[in-house]
Amino acid sequence: MEQEAGLRRGRGRRPAATVRKAILDAAGAMLFDGGLAGVTFDKVAQRAGVSKMTLYKWWPSPGALAFEAYSVAVEHRLAFDDTGDVAHDLRAQLHAFVRLLTTERGGPVIATLIGAAQGDDDLAAAFEAEYIGPRRRLAVERIRRAQECGQIATDVDPEVVVDQLWGACYHRLLLPGPPLDTAFADALLRNLLGGIAG
Amino acid sequence: MEQEAGLRRGRGRRPAATVRKAILDAAGAMLFDGGLAGVTFDKVAQRAGVSKMTLYKWWPSPGALAFEAYSVAVEHRLAFDDTGDVAHDLRAQLHAFVRLLTTERGGPVIATLIGAAQGDDDLAAAFEAEYIGPRRRLAVERIRRAQECGQIATDVDPEVVVDQLWGACYHRLLLPGPPLDTAFADALLRNLLGGIAG
Repeated sequence: MEQEAGLRRGRGRRPAATVRKAILDAAGAMLFDGGLAGVTFDKVAQRAGVSKMTLYKWWPSPGALAFEAYSVAVEHRLAFDDTGDVAHDLRAQLHAFVRLLTTERGGPVIATLIGAAQGDDDLAAAFEAEYIGPRRRLAVERIRRAQECGQIATDVDPEVVVDQLWGACYHRLLLPGPPLDTAFADALLRNLLGGIAG
Repeated sequence: MEQEAGLRRGRGRRPAATVRKAILDAAGAMLFDGGLAGVTFDKVAQRAGVSKMTLYKWWPSPGALAFEAYSVAVEHRLAFDDTGDVAHDLRAQLHAFVRLLTTERGGPVIATLIGAAQGDDDLAAAFEAEYIGPRRRLAVERIRRAQECGQIATDVDPEVVVDQLWGACYHRLLLPGPPLDTAFADALLRNLLGGIAG
């Protein structure tokens, strides 16, 4: 199956969803192997067994494809649980996020993508649409449910909480400073849930 | 004086500190005018009236010079006050920081510098040494003084507070999302000082 998809001998079209998945899987693997520079339409087309025209039809640029491929590659690792205890669920998700950025090599990949998006409006738009927007919405939804059941104060803006948890992790990833680790994630949650006033 | 420094007719050497300041002022102005790409040793040498050899002697790269120039250019705007009320002082500094990044055009400049530092170890080291390290230390010192007088809990790590205030602002600057403004800065402080638990 994989081989047939790769060789594509013209014995009928694969469904679009299958082709799309093959492309995103190929681009994701290439991104984690060789970084953003390794993701060109030429190489992805070859590896996924599709024409370059298909790529041009579906993505405005290799960067846009790379953001979506990153998003798909990390999606299941960054899922939000809902055990009914928001402190537990945020902690579990933040730990998975920190592991992805550190031990699983997602950090250098996403750092390069974010770096490339600075001053490149098209890439920034793809970043928003394909990765950071959807992830922000999932976090905000989980925080809203916690507000509905009284675990987070209702006058708190969930968007700001996103910046003070995940944004703080990106800060340690992108700017030189103390290490990004799970103890840091725990401190973020402790500070924010309980407050730091003396 | 300014003209003589610029033309430098060989009527004696200027003191090193004066030359250094002229270079940093020139590089800072060029950085805010034309971004990182405009800061080359050639152009800075010409504008500051110094030889390129002087620049090579003092900075390993135009990027390292650009980080120090940015640091010097924004230093007085980002000073920490100490009125004895840490909530007031952090709020005043965060407002100045947000204004610098938004209305005063510092945002695109520092975003490009941070973007360029991704995947460039020398530039990341210059960023740490010339800008982000010194700024982090000033913030940590102000928070430590607040801990000494009982305004911030003593078991809180000031480094983590830095990530949850300034890091959250960088998150809105570098990653697409809701706007970075002074109301956001106020919400960051409110959440962190008082806690968000329901």
